[in-house]
Amino acid sequence: MNKKGILVVVSGFSGAGKGTVMKELLRKYDNYALSVSVTTRSPRPGEEEGREYFFRTKEEFERLIREDALIEYARYVENYYGTPRSYVEQQLSMGKDVILEIEIQGAMKIKEKIPEALLVFVTPPSVEELRNRLVGRGTETAEVIESRMSRAGEEAEGMESYDYILVNDDLEECVERMHQIILSEHYRMERNAAFVQKIKEESRALKRS
Amino acid sequence: MNKKGILVVVSGFSGAGKGTVMKELLRKYDNYALSVSVTTRSPRPGEEEGREYFFRTKEEFERLIREDALIEYARYVENYYGTPRSYVEQQLSMGKDVILEIEIQGAMKIKEKIPEALLVFVTPPSVEELRNRLVGRGTETAEVIESRMSRAGEEAEGMESYDYILVNDDLEECVERMHQIILSEHYRMERNAAFVQKIKEESRALKRS
Repeated sequence: MNKKGILVVVSGFSGAGKGTVMKELLRKYDNYALSVSVTTRSPRPGEEEGREYFFRTKEEFERLIREDALIEYARYVENYYGTPRSYVEQQLSMGKDVILEIEIQGAMKIKEKIPEALLVFVTPPSVEELRNRLVGRGTETAEVIESRMSRAGEEAEGMESYDYILVNDDLEECVERMHQIILSEHYRMERNAAFVQKIKEESRALKRS
Repeated sequence: MNKKGILVVVSGFSGAGKGTVMKELLRKYDNYALSVSVTTRSPRPGEEEGREYFFRTKEEFERLIREDALIEYARYVENYYGTPRSYVEQQLSMGKDVILEIEIQGAMKIKEKIPEALLVFVTPPSVEELRNRLVGRGTETAEVIESRMSRAGEEAEGMESYDYILVNDDLEECVERMHQIILSEHYRMERNAAFVQKIKEESRALKRS
């Protein structure tokens, strides 16, 4: 059966709790590796090189682009964000399922370049609930909340391009469901072409004997 | 989220143990219903009406065909075999996942008529293992074994039309995997169109407000 890892792209509304879901997934199971993005934006207080992001200069980033060292990249406002290719490919070949948290435009680019990537969209049970969570944090200004909600509206329009939708109502349940979805995907017919080929050849050999 | 059941079509080589897998699945979990086929062949010793098959006369069967009461049917040698539509649809609408064991030609017909059906192919780890199991039963003549093996060869050619492939190496593991695959499928984006629509409308309403 399929021993190669699956590249899992996780997107979802800001406030859907996908960061927590992924953290739990990585803590509980050892078949996952987290893909860390590279960016040209400055580290915020508490952020660590190689944990939240790899922080690079604009010149370094543009060299990565020229060297085709990024699976995808995008520019937001004044900064670049990208996914380093080598780490992802190395982990996949070692059989790790690589989790990549990325917004919808990036996810679409990944799907285009790597059709076997698995796209999972995480959402709260309702948009109202999303607003409640953002307000409940108590750390966001009204303006930030409105901008997040408007962004959520845009992201909702692209939901259908994802393979799975997960409602994050209960954290533990959502983590387990995500885990089982990824494990189950390993048994998809198209991910097991080599095994299917083996069975076919064995049964053809049998007919000839 | 999706509350409607999924029609799960299970096929696989004779000797792959799919009957036992399904029996265990039904015994352990209550979200399943088994679709029982209707046939014109005579009951064998120990077979019960409504358990192995619904036994009908040729005339009765042909009336079912005319009344479009079968999702699919086929004729083998002198006998008809078919899948009653009403039971399947009733169970699906009640949220049960309906399991249907059927050979490959029937599975293809189901997929054509009901594209959202989930097709799972069960196989032993190797063709050699398949022969060993058939021989090991000690109940089959050499001729029957050869005919089963040759049939397996034909079925192998159609494996790629299935959605998932499951290796039945360890019974408990295979049952659990099958269960998780079916549960996970409920979270497929295309099975949740209504929920996606709700989220989209909520976020559009928000933009207008």
